[in-house]
Amino acid sequence: MSNAKPLILVSNDDGITSKGILTLINVMKRIGDVLVVAPDSPQSGMGHAITVGESLRLEENFIFENVQAFECSGTPADCVKMARHFVLKGKRQPDVIVSGINHGSNTSISVLYSGTMSAAIEGAIEGTPAIGFSLCDYSHDADFSHTEAYIEKITREVLAKGLPKGVALNVNFPPASQGPIQGIRICRQANAKWEEEFDQRFDPNGRRYFWMVGAFVNFDKGEDNDEWAIANNYVSVVPCQFDLTAHTTIPLLNEQWTILDRADSTHTEVSEYRIPGKEDRG
Amino acid sequence: MSNAKPLILVSNDDGITSKGILTLINVMKRIGDVLVVAPDSPQSGMGHAITVGESLRLEENFIFENVQAFECSGTPADCVKMARHFVLKGKRQPDVIVSGINHGSNTSISVLYSGTMSAAIEGAIEGTPAIGFSLCDYSHDADFSHTEAYIEKITREVLAKGLPKGVALNVNFPPASQGPIQGIRICRQANAKWEEEFDQRFDPNGRRYFWMVGAFVNFDKGEDNDEWAIANNYVSVVPCQFDLTAHTTIPLLNEQWTILDRADSTHTEVSEYRIPGKEDRG
Repeated sequence: MSNAKPLILVSNDDGITSKGILTLINVMKRIGDVLVVAPDSPQSGMGHAITVGESLRLEENFIFENVQAFECSGTPADCVKMARHFVLKGKRQPDVIVSGINHGSNTSISVLYSGTMSAAIEGAIEGTPAIGFSLCDYSHDADFSHTEAYIEKITREVLAKGLPKGVALNVNFPPASQGPIQGIRICRQANAKWEEEFDQRFDPNGRRYFWMVGAFVNFDKGEDNDEWAIANNYVSVVPCQFDLTAHTTIPLLNEQWTILDRADSTHTEVSEYRIPGKEDRG
Repeated sequence: MSNAKPLILVSNDDGITSKGILTLINVMKRIGDVLVVAPDSPQSGMGHAITVGESLRLEENFIFENVQAFECSGTPADCVKMARHFVLKGKRQPDVIVSGINHGSNTSISVLYSGTMSAAIEGAIEGTPAIGFSLCDYSHDADFSHTEAYIEKITREVLAKGLPKGVALNVNFPPASQGPIQGIRICRQANAKWEEEFDQRFDPNGRRYFWMVGAFVNFDKGEDNDEWAIANNYVSVVPCQFDLTAHTTIPLLNEQWTILDRADSTHTEVSEYRIPGKEDRG
């Protein structure tokens, strides 16, 4: 970093009025210049959703002291896109994107469903270092005070050292009720899933509806994953990538499958469709 | 497979009335017993969203001949969860989950935003072989006829040979207008992104709104990726995983970061917080 203050873009998925984003903004004000673009309503569980086939609203919001802020009708990923390509269009782009602090865990498989992390991964797609912060406490008035020093430390470390291309960090904190934090661990995503049940009810018109109720099931016995870290009172830091390719499966399928069209094989099952010279997209 | 017909769960993200899902159902009826649980309205761009904090509807639907079908008010991921944990609760679970055929490309970075692929990845999370099919043609009445033989071939291959644990396939087809298909290629996800612009308009009350307009930018010069395959008239098959961990970044951060709490280092920055014996989650 030069001597200039870093520009920090803040977003989240619990909405611009949540306690978590207020905590995050207050920590970021110690580090740099802050711009907020966050959803105007809660967007939990939105995964990497974007708004397609509908229009978007963006309005300036004046709730934060000395911080420019906008509320957006879209998803967390939409917020990052609007910040970069509308609010900051033709201007200096952010040095880091931070998202959260989420009211609830985004460890292990929950990273896939997480709006908090989708804002961070959107940053990674754009080549900006990005971090999603989550507290493993779902309550509306959760105590975030034990996270502040760690959030500042991690953000400063990322600003100083950068992150590899295509990588964003998924940072989770144990709840304050678990007692003092033991330190920070770099982890892998634990092997776990949600086991759903559907609670069936009937509305006043006798029509059926359901509430999804999930129980978390952890299959992971390792000590190098984010679930272990949180259970043992560490801050978990999982580097995440947006390349979903299961690279080791490519040679496996190339070997196992007999329906592939190979230049080096005598397999001609689909050769009647071949037209030489058609190499470019129409 | 035994002699029993396979049970095939079909979902999508364009909604239960789309032409793409009808084509997919008709192909699947040649292979096995079909159950449909699909969104009651279009869910494009929903990524891996799930419905949190709202209830869900599920109603039986009778539009498909000799096929049990349900329409769900939720996302594609919700549909797979409801199929497994409500419709098929305590019953035989699907042998394969297929999603699509999407009206539009889900190659490269679009896999992250894809509702079609979220249904398939939800299958992989549950340990069921799963495939998302997409046609690189966004039109409502797209011609899917050239995809049918390939969809049947790929689904039968997956039923016969299975897929590695935690892997789902992202299959994309060139549009019919590009001419005959050259064959099937196993690919990696291309390195590309969407470059957004926001088209600003004003409603009849003078209030501003926006349409997101994306231009696709391909940075990838390789010939082993899905964008190349589609441009060269191949069917692209990308094996995808839900472990987002950037595994090679773990040793890098462990080496670079000076804020970590290491048993083997003299670094004691956070040691004042350490309380021995607190090993279990509260």
